[in-house]
Amino acid sequence: MRAAYYQGNRTIGVGACVPVEPATGQVQIRVSHCGVCGTDLHLFKGHMDHRVRMPQVIGHEMSGTVEAAGPGAGDWKPGDRVTVRPLDPCGACPACLAGNGHVCLKLKFIGIDEPGAFQALWTVPAHTIHRVPAGLPLDHAALIEPVAVACHDVRLGDIQPGEYAVVIGGGPIGAVVALVARQAGARVLVTEINPFRIGLLRSLGLDVADPRETDLVKFVHEQTGGAGADAVFEVSGSEAGSAVMSDLLRVRGRVILVAVYSKLTPVNLHRFFWRELRLIGARVYEPCDFDQAIALLASGEQPFTRLITGVYPLDGLQRGLEEMGRGADVMKILVDCQS
Amino acid sequence: MRAAYYQGNRTIGVGACVPVEPATGQVQIRVSHCGVCGTDLHLFKGHMDHRVRMPQVIGHEMSGTVEAAGPGAGDWKPGDRVTVRPLDPCGACPACLAGNGHVCLKLKFIGIDEPGAFQALWTVPAHTIHRVPAGLPLDHAALIEPVAVACHDVRLGDIQPGEYAVVIGGGPIGAVVALVARQAGARVLVTEINPFRIGLLRSLGLDVADPRETDLVKFVHEQTGGAGADAVFEVSGSEAGSAVMSDLLRVRGRVILVAVYSKLTPVNLHRFFWRELRLIGARVYEPCDFDQAIALLASGEQPFTRLITGVYPLDGLQRGLEEMGRGADVMKILVDCQS
Repeated sequence: MRAAYYQGNRTIGVGACVPVEPATGQVQIRVSHCGVCGTDLHLFKGHMDHRVRMPQVIGHEMSGTVEAAGPGAGDWKPGDRVTVRPLDPCGACPACLAGNGHVCLKLKFIGIDEPGAFQALWTVPAHTIHRVPAGLPLDHAALIEPVAVACHDVRLGDIQPGEYAVVIGGGPIGAVVALVARQAGARVLVTEINPFRIGLLRSLGLDVADPRETDLVKFVHEQTGGAGADAVFEVSGSEAGSAVMSDLLRVRGRVILVAVYSKLTPVNLHRFFWRELRLIGARVYEPCDFDQAIALLASGEQPFTRLITGVYPLDGLQRGLEEMGRGADVMKILVDCQS
Repeated sequence: MRAAYYQGNRTIGVGACVPVEPATGQVQIRVSHCGVCGTDLHLFKGHMDHRVRMPQVIGHEMSGTVEAAGPGAGDWKPGDRVTVRPLDPCGACPACLAGNGHVCLKLKFIGIDEPGAFQALWTVPAHTIHRVPAGLPLDHAALIEPVAVACHDVRLGDIQPGEYAVVIGGGPIGAVVALVARQAGARVLVTEINPFRIGLLRSLGLDVADPRETDLVKFVHEQTGGAGADAVFEVSGSEAGSAVMSDLLRVRGRVILVAVYSKLTPVNLHRFFWRELRLIGARVYEPCDFDQAIALLASGEQPFTRLITGVYPLDGLQRGLEEMGRGADVMKILVDCQS
């Protein structure tokens, strides 16, 4: 029974797991797999030290089986196959009262503000749990959370069959956004500069352009009869991405803003006005996005699992984070939390 | 029969009007009144010299009566009371083919790209004409065009009864946006720094805050139970406006971008992501917006006509533009084009 702890200073320690007995309304889960998220990399780099209490177990892209349920935690039974939607809203702020608890003004993100899933046994509120269907292996089920992000983005972007969508940034989130947009019927172009990622995405049948080699604005207009793209997913968080996003769009096209920008960013507001463009902020997910992600993964219709480039033991989390940090040939790394 | 011509170098000349006989599909209008728009001021200042052929008649916020109709121009009869929606789309570009001719990629704006309405007789395409109802005086009907801008902005902003809307910038367009949003059932706050405008807007029963005296973010949150505004209309085109717009909004609130920004502008994209905000570009109007503006003005339910601070003869256009340019105590100036 072990856990991986973020200790600050780009260090993950692995030590004894301290199981928390499930209290009222809580469920204890035996964690099977947990993916390593870009957010975990941010945490590892120390960018979010103000939100964590070290040493802290992080991680939130997980799958597992119910170990025990506390009183009033619903009808969860030991062995039930589950995943967790790691959001704990306050229930009382204006956002919660308006039905937008996923972006609660006092949101606790479980795995940052509360202990995470890189441990053998994890105790969470029962309201966060979704059932994993029998046909979906638990390693694949660790992809539900990032796929739910993509389902949220594609839903808020209102992608329609036959639309042309550009995904700026082909990392793990850009890749799942591209696959979910393709599933929604869009023609999809991904822009990416990392050769490993370009190769992997192309092997999934996605069109990929390297913006250092291709004039994106010209190419997208050629592909769309001079109109421009219907939608652009800005997933890169780069100045190059925010600079080009509005230039790629047709009249009344939509930018779906998925990336985190840490500072004020120059935006071509004139083009937003002139072409009546829309910018749509999209953060995390709602319960329906998890339901859709589970159904999509269970259907096997898109090759999400090809994004898994390695399954490491808990002891390998440090190595995985270092590989991600230096842009090594990795896409999605999973950790086997029973290792 | 006279016309006011923009001659470059901040100069308006008044000379003989050269009536253009209406060709096929055209209608000649005896212009009654024409409002002076912020766009006319931009033209006057030389900012749009690349789009005009001097000497050029400008002006586009007009009312009048049909003088003559060319072949195939519909059933317009001399004396019919009309206004013009001054947009001439190409009909063939991707925007037009998608039903968005008002933001045609090759749009001719009549009064900039083609001769305008500061003249006694004006000939325009018949497809631009809307009928003015009998009860609406023609001087008041010159407000239809700017009110249609506001109807477009409020419609694209999807303003609902009971919502809290902030209008940043209380000039002529901000003022009509505020009145149309109020008509739609919103609680409206206008932000403005010009004392004359503040006084006029307050006399119309609008709440107005001077951002140099009021902490807007604090005030708006106090007014909305800590939630933030449902919608912000950015009409100012100022860096202060674009800096504060996202801070005023509740989770999933909307910025309706009405202002023209001439350069890249710093935007708080993090807040758009974090609160799932939306930015909605809104330019000119569609036919339904003209219909709504005509009905609203005819109803007399909102005091739009109180915004008219002067009716000048054609000879007074130069003076009116100069007054607007130096921020004198004017809101909407009309020109009597039969003077």
